[in-house]
Amino acid sequence: MQELSSLPLKAEQIKTDTDSLKYYGKDWTTYFDIKASAIVFPESTEDVVNIVKWARANKIALVPSGGRTGLSGAACALNGEVVVSFEKMHRILSFNETDSTVQIEPGVITESLQEFARSKNLYYPVDFAARGSSQLGGNIATNAGGIKVVRYGLTRDWVVGLEVVTGSGEVLNLNNGLIKNATGLDLRHLFVGSEGILGFITQATIKLAPKPPELKVLVFALDQLSSVMKVYSEFKNRCALQAYEMFSEKALKHVLHSTGLPRPLETVADFYVVCEVECASEKAEENIMSVFEGCLENGWLLDGVISQSEVQAKTFWRYREDISEALSVHSPYKNDVAVAISKVPDFIVDLDLVLSQAYPNWEVVWFGHIGDGNLHINILRPEGMTKEQFVAECRKVDEMVFKAVQKQAGSISAEHGVGVTKRSFLTYTRSPEEIEIMKGIKKVFDPDNIMNPGKVI
Amino acid sequence: MQELSSLPLKAEQIKTDTDSLKYYGKDWTTYFDIKASAIVFPESTEDVVNIVKWARANKIALVPSGGRTGLSGAACALNGEVVVSFEKMHRILSFNETDSTVQIEPGVITESLQEFARSKNLYYPVDFAARGSSQLGGNIATNAGGIKVVRYGLTRDWVVGLEVVTGSGEVLNLNNGLIKNATGLDLRHLFVGSEGILGFITQATIKLAPKPPELKVLVFALDQLSSVMKVYSEFKNRCALQAYEMFSEKALKHVLHSTGLPRPLETVADFYVVCEVECASEKAEENIMSVFEGCLENGWLLDGVISQSEVQAKTFWRYREDISEALSVHSPYKNDVAVAISKVPDFIVDLDLVLSQAYPNWEVVWFGHIGDGNLHINILRPEGMTKEQFVAECRKVDEMVFKAVQKQAGSISAEHGVGVTKRSFLTYTRSPEEIEIMKGIKKVFDPDNIMNPGKVI
Ligand SMILES: Cc1cc2nc3c(=O)[nH]c(=O)nc-3n(C[C@H](O)[C@H](O)[C@H](O)COP(=O)(O)OP(=O)(O)OC[C@H]3O[C@@H](n4cnc5c(N)ncnc54)[C@H](O)[C@@H]3O)c2cc1C
Ligand SMILES: Cc1cc2nc3c(=O)[nH]c(=O)nc-3n(C[C@H](O)[C@H](O)[C@H](O)COP(=O)(O)OP(=O)(O)OC[C@H]3O[C@@H](n4cnc5c(N)ncnc54)[C@H](O)[C@@H]3O)c2cc1C
Repeated sequence: MQELSSLPLKAEQIKTDTDSLKYYGKDWTTYFDIKASAIVFPESTEDVVNIVKWARANKIALVPSGGRTGLSGAACALNGEVVVSFEKMHRILSFNETDSTVQIEPGVITESLQEFARSKNLYYPVDFAARGSSQLGGNIATNAGGIKVVRYGLTRDWVVGLEVVTGSGEVLNLNNGLIKNATGLDLRHLFVGSEGILGFITQATIKLAPKPPELKVLVFALDQLSSVMKVYSEFKNRCALQAYEMFSEKALKHVLHSTGLPRPLETVADFYVVCEVECASEKAEENIMSVFEGCLENGWLLDGVISQSEVQAKTFWRYREDISEALSVHSPYKNDVAVAISKVPDFIVDLDLVLSQAYPNWEVVWFGHIGDGNLHINILRPEGMTKEQFVAECRKVDEMVFKAVQKQAGSISAEHGVGVTKRSFLTYTRSPEEIEIMKGIKKVFDPDNIMNPGKVI
Repeated sequence: MQELSSLPLKAEQIKTDTDSLKYYGKDWTTYFDIKASAIVFPESTEDVVNIVKWARANKIALVPSGGRTGLSGAACALNGEVVVSFEKMHRILSFNETDSTVQIEPGVITESLQEFARSKNLYYPVDFAARGSSQLGGNIATNAGGIKVVRYGLTRDWVVGLEVVTGSGEVLNLNNGLIKNATGLDLRHLFVGSEGILGFITQATIKLAPKPPELKVLVFALDQLSSVMKVYSEFKNRCALQAYEMFSEKALKHVLHSTGLPRPLETVADFYVVCEVECASEKAEENIMSVFEGCLENGWLLDGVISQSEVQAKTFWRYREDISEALSVHSPYKNDVAVAISKVPDFIVDLDLVLSQAYPNWEVVWFGHIGDGNLHINILRPEGMTKEQFVAECRKVDEMVFKAVQKQAGSISAEHGVGVTKRSFLTYTRSPEEIEIMKGIKKVFDPDNIMNPGKVI
């Protein structure tokens, strides 16, 4: 790419070798042909502004890239784009004790922020299995959710300020860390979840939460989804619930196989739950035990166990958190859908029918953040089938899955974003009028359509 | 207005008599010449669509109007606009127990929703002195804050779904009550706080909170602002703080005069605080008392009292809540500014200087949601001065106040919005680039500029 020579960056900030193009040119998805032209590594907001100006002048498309753990292909370069990696912008810039806020560069790894918060006796509550690689910039651009949403909400709820560089090269400081600011349209919220189509996130001010008390982790075995929902309500209403994650026996089997862990419980059941609750005092512990026993007595739980140590708590979490990793060897085709909690039971009935009819002999693995009405559906590639055949088959069934979602006014992408994987299905959740408006808004921020074109809309 | 005859509404849905034009043509502000052409009262979303289409066809500007308690003039008709009042769209449409959500029309009064929530053993936590008149539509369009923000956030945090009619007459269903929905730009958040410039809010799905435990209300007397901040930190970090409201001796005097209430404490001091904390158990009460006593021992509090009954708690609240009403006879010129909490002390020093130099002989009354870094500044009109003279004087000083705000990267309107009162000062908080982007976005939703033109931007 000849134009690179006019890019005002140091030589080590530009990579064009094949390995780098492959490595940085993609996210966690595996079904796309990666065609990046170059990877650039800004070290400052000024670098980002220069990159945008250069791209506009040369009509070159840019793909923002964070930790590349995204599951929608939104950080993939598929048409010769230049990838802008935030790997070198990973500093924690300042901490404000009075405000409990931290100002960061976008390349800070999620887990590093969690650790930083802990070092200040505070808590950054957005948490999920990709924490060790995903970056705050990517988390903000996808409005990442994860396992603590029932208690702490999504990434959106922790972003009190953003610095962004728009697709026209302007630097905007959005909201400046304020709690209250009623001065017109809140553009910060447009950038949260924008998947890189409006501009680059170059700095963020993140609010931290008070450190929670001791947490107990429970694992349950249950024989029906209605019980999963009932137990959820009990714990949600009567304890300080932090997380409530469901997975199927099939999912568990994959984890046991890939990790060598023993079964969490003797009882083999159709469904399992990993549940995390705050346990601030002995009284709280008694209360947890009484809710737990009540669920057993009502027959909603077949079996269950409560963590007795931090080590055990960590192991219990692995049954849920290692699922994605365990499935990855089967190149699963993923869907990540959500409906209102009250609609989960009806939705599951419809979905079960669709999937069992569509893939009678295929392996379908379910798990999800059920406390948010959010289900992950993973279809494993049958041996002998090519990637292309498999994806083509899956996309046919997608329409049926998404019709079931639409029937419940749900979301065809609960937290993974739209990117390229869901782009052609967007109308199942957003109306044509909304999509036109999104296009109009993109144009306001990015008049030359250089920001992640072909993604989302 | 001749065009009214072609408006597809019933006769009783249109008012043009002088009294109605005056009454519905304005909000709580008192300094504007009201020039409404007509007031219309839609009864359904369809009516709203018809009104918008009619307005576009006839190039007539529309002003959305809720409970008319706004303090920025955003609901005032100043140029012959047609006011669209939501008074007749005040139904609570449905309640979902599992999701803890309620679907409402925009004309529902804030207090009615609070009462409805209580009847379901739940809680709608957005609360402030105008609760008895303000409407949910207006609350959403201003992202109302109020006294419980330290614990429960702003209106934005409770809006899980919106139905809106844009300025081009399209009906959009935004987010459908979902917790997780990563399908592109979240337009719902653009409408929250948009002050009617993008379109009409015609329905909303609101999340309700669990009912809080018993609440205790405390009143404190303090002699300096640094103590106000220290006591805030103690209660915030060590108790479950629901509200922390500050006011000055001058503010208190006005309330005592207008209500006839006795002084809350024997001690006369420069500052007072009304503080509300959760008191779930005897242990919690002991803890509150020990924090309280600690603050007394440290000399941060001069005096204080804790409520012994619900009636007493209500009375304590009146010392804070009746301030606006008590001041209203003096037609106060209001400012409502915010900075990050950590910047409050520096900001106050600057502000004090500005105000004492600018109005050495005028009465300036302070109060505010100090736990959010939010201060209300009220300048009372000196006797004998005309409204016009007074406002002209005040607007000169505004620039100095807003410079002090800008120095701390604060907000020139914490929760009252921009409307007309703050429009010409918007650059003190938002950059020219941001304002251009807001204009661009408005155009996407409202191509003919019929929605509340002349407001905000
Ligand atoms: C094992 C596993 C578990 C997961 N679990 C969850 C989960 O529970 N919840 C959940 O929400 N997600 C989950 N994910 C998905 C993924 O981790 C999240 O979407 C994450 O937020 C992506 O962050 P990233 O830094 O890896 O972003 P990337 O994949 O690099 O990029 C994601 C998007 O953000 C954009 N972007 C990145 N940086 C910037 C920037 N600085 N400015 C502008 N745009 C930018 C990209 O262009 C792209 O559109 C999981 C993924 C894996 C692999
Ligand atoms: C005594 C007093 C105390 C107050 N305390 C607080 C406080 O603590 N915190 C706070 O935030 N505010 C406070 N306010 C300000 C005011 O009450 C809030 O701004 C409130 O949210 C306005 O609601 P409303 O229904 O009265 O709106 P209105 O004044 O009628 O309108 C406000 C704005 O909303 C728009 N609007 C109204 N309905 C719709 C709709 N359906 N669709 C689209 N746009 C619409 C209007 O065009 C206007 O721009 C106070 C006001 C008073 C008088």
